[in-house]
Amino acid sequence: MELAEYRELRRAEATKIVLLVMDGLGGLPRETDGLTELEAAHTPNLDRLAAEGICGLHEPVAPGVTPGSGPSHLALFGYDPLTYRVGRGALSAMGIGFDLGPHDVAARGNYATVDADGRVTDRRAGRISTALNRELCARLRAIELPDAEVMVETVAEHRFLLVLRGEGLSEAISDTDPQSVGEYPLEPRATDPAADRTARLVAAFVAQAREVLADQPAANMVLLRGFARRPAWPSMEEAFGLRGAAIAAYPMYRGLARLLGMDALEVEDSLPAAVEVLERHWAAYDFFYLHAKHTDSEGEDGDFEGKVAEIERVDGVVPRIMQLAPDVIIVTGDHSTPAVLRSHSWHPVPVLIRSPYCRRDRVERFGERACMAGGLGPRIPATALIPIAVASALRLEKYGA
Amino acid sequence: MELAEYRELRRAEATKIVLLVMDGLGGLPRETDGLTELEAAHTPNLDRLAAEGICGLHEPVAPGVTPGSGPSHLALFGYDPLTYRVGRGALSAMGIGFDLGPHDVAARGNYATVDADGRVTDRRAGRISTALNRELCARLRAIELPDAEVMVETVAEHRFLLVLRGEGLSEAISDTDPQSVGEYPLEPRATDPAADRTARLVAAFVAQAREVLADQPAANMVLLRGFARRPAWPSMEEAFGLRGAAIAAYPMYRGLARLLGMDALEVEDSLPAAVEVLERHWAAYDFFYLHAKHTDSEGEDGDFEGKVAEIERVDGVVPRIMQLAPDVIIVTGDHSTPAVLRSHSWHPVPVLIRSPYCRRDRVERFGERACMAGGLGPRIPATALIPIAVASALRLEKYGA
Repeated sequence: MELAEYRELRRAEATKIVLLVMDGLGGLPRETDGLTELEAAHTPNLDRLAAEGICGLHEPVAPGVTPGSGPSHLALFGYDPLTYRVGRGALSAMGIGFDLGPHDVAARGNYATVDADGRVTDRRAGRISTALNRELCARLRAIELPDAEVMVETVAEHRFLLVLRGEGLSEAISDTDPQSVGEYPLEPRATDPAADRTARLVAAFVAQAREVLADQPAANMVLLRGFARRPAWPSMEEAFGLRGAAIAAYPMYRGLARLLGMDALEVEDSLPAAVEVLERHWAAYDFFYLHAKHTDSEGEDGDFEGKVAEIERVDGVVPRIMQLAPDVIIVTGDHSTPAVLRSHSWHPVPVLIRSPYCRRDRVERFGERACMAGGLGPRIPATALIPIAVASALRLEKYGA
Repeated sequence: MELAEYRELRRAEATKIVLLVMDGLGGLPRETDGLTELEAAHTPNLDRLAAEGICGLHEPVAPGVTPGSGPSHLALFGYDPLTYRVGRGALSAMGIGFDLGPHDVAARGNYATVDADGRVTDRRAGRISTALNRELCARLRAIELPDAEVMVETVAEHRFLLVLRGEGLSEAISDTDPQSVGEYPLEPRATDPAADRTARLVAAFVAQAREVLADQPAANMVLLRGFARRPAWPSMEEAFGLRGAAIAAYPMYRGLARLLGMDALEVEDSLPAAVEVLERHWAAYDFFYLHAKHTDSEGEDGDFEGKVAEIERVDGVVPRIMQLAPDVIIVTGDHSTPAVLRSHSWHPVPVLIRSPYCRRDRVERFGERACMAGGLGPRIPATALIPIAVASALRLEKYGA
């Protein structure tokens, strides 16, 4: 069912939903004892929720697809990432906490090297330092364009964000990045006649950037791609009737939550701090998204024990969350990050939903293999979780007579 | 796969399929012992079918969606209710057993109250009695329109059905119900140029109705909405090659079955009567839909024990059905109606399919938690059941070479 159809079924209720996301939660067994990170962790509180709730494994995007955090979080929020696509420029903005406004067009930028003839010899300018990147971005900020503000923000190494702000700008601009060395940078072209003026502004920016960077041995050119505006999507309030708050310390997650109309509450990068923010704002929202990042970082580092410890730390704050008596709590991850793979992976992710009206299954432990036998099934689409939670919070009307 | 594609695979066979629907079958655990209605019921015959068959839970419409009986039955018959939508007028006709013909346009009508200025003060005319409704409908039937027959049928309280019958009528007419008090009734507008004449006829009906009802203190106006023709859908015979018979006492279910080309056999509202009708017509059809209504009514009343008793009554007639030796029997509900919620709900519905060629699983009992581990899985779309049954009846050709 499309979001627009769920929207027709919204029903006001004073119930509250918590979505607790352990980033990269899903794992794979280690050799010594065949247990995954979650199975090896001592998680009495999560196990109790699993026993009282309904469990399963969710598939974030599609079979076999390893998702980035953007698409996997969109899916968790109920937005099919194959329908709701974020342009690279908008994603870069989110990643550094830059809030795109309604008159902004963003592009992902690379500092690059061109030879005397102007051909690209290194698309990443030898991965210059972030410090140099900052210096060069400060220079580029001085570029002036007619009727458009120019913003240039450092991301890291050779990567930066370009934002043009002004009335009537369009995202229908082709990339200037030729994607291979030995080629000339491409002219920015309008892929829609309404983008002609924007294309001229981008061309002027690139020409001036080249002059400004002429003294640089490596970073003497910029390449731009993924021109994008802020997506105009239904908010979670519009789609599901949920006034939402994000309790997440990292910019990408805060930015994505804001895109969906949630408030991104100020919070430090610590679990007790996150729970304290939750407690403080409990009265003001219907939906709380809590993000625990370090399960993913430990997985990416290949630190099995570190990830186990992070899961146990999250388990430790569960009783404080449950003291608030949420009507529905979902505990899951956005994707799998098995320590043995040291990266995101395509594996379905353990999930539990606990509410008085969920239909309890026979799962007694929160773990990958236990969840396979759960009532949500071993491959429920991630996009189904919020609709089920909203229904369990008695916030959906009947469909049809 | 779309119905049109299954249609290409139809294969003639002298096999018979029974679909036994316990309305609102799915339940939730009661507090005392944690058993659902179906789990608490003593159902030796259904348990044997579950043990001999393949089990699971089906999702009627979409995750979290609580379906009305119309959409949920469509899904059970293999028609995706998000594709096959019934307009409210057509649904009202079905609900009172009014068979819409090919030249009919139906609308749901409300008797309403307007003030001296013509503004709506009560969209339901104080919920007048059904008796008064009948009297007023008799008056409205006297309205004459050029080249169109006027039919007005009582539904209940303030609700009635308007049907206009005539060549070239269209359903592309906007509602006259303003949906809020303090507003004037809306003019019926053609939302398609081909509906201009129909719009004029509807306007003329409303004008005359207002005169006819002028002496009424409360019901002095009519509001119309959901103009709809009989949907032109493939019949079950066209889609799956099944000559079908509906054995259902309630008008909505009979009407819906007729929409899909089934014969609605005459039957009293009793299980033994239904089985007798089944036996009597066994030779004449390929597909029998048996509807047991009272499981839903008891659930809606919050009567857990009453629903248990109804399930046991259905279990009691299963041996007589099995004596007919159907090649395939499906036993399920159209949706869940847990007694603890006193209403339809979004929870998946237990289902078993028993045939010599189903692939038996390890489920030994017909119940929600037992079915979660079944071979059909815990969330099979309801629309998949008829295709599986038709295949199990050896009535589908191979797809592709």
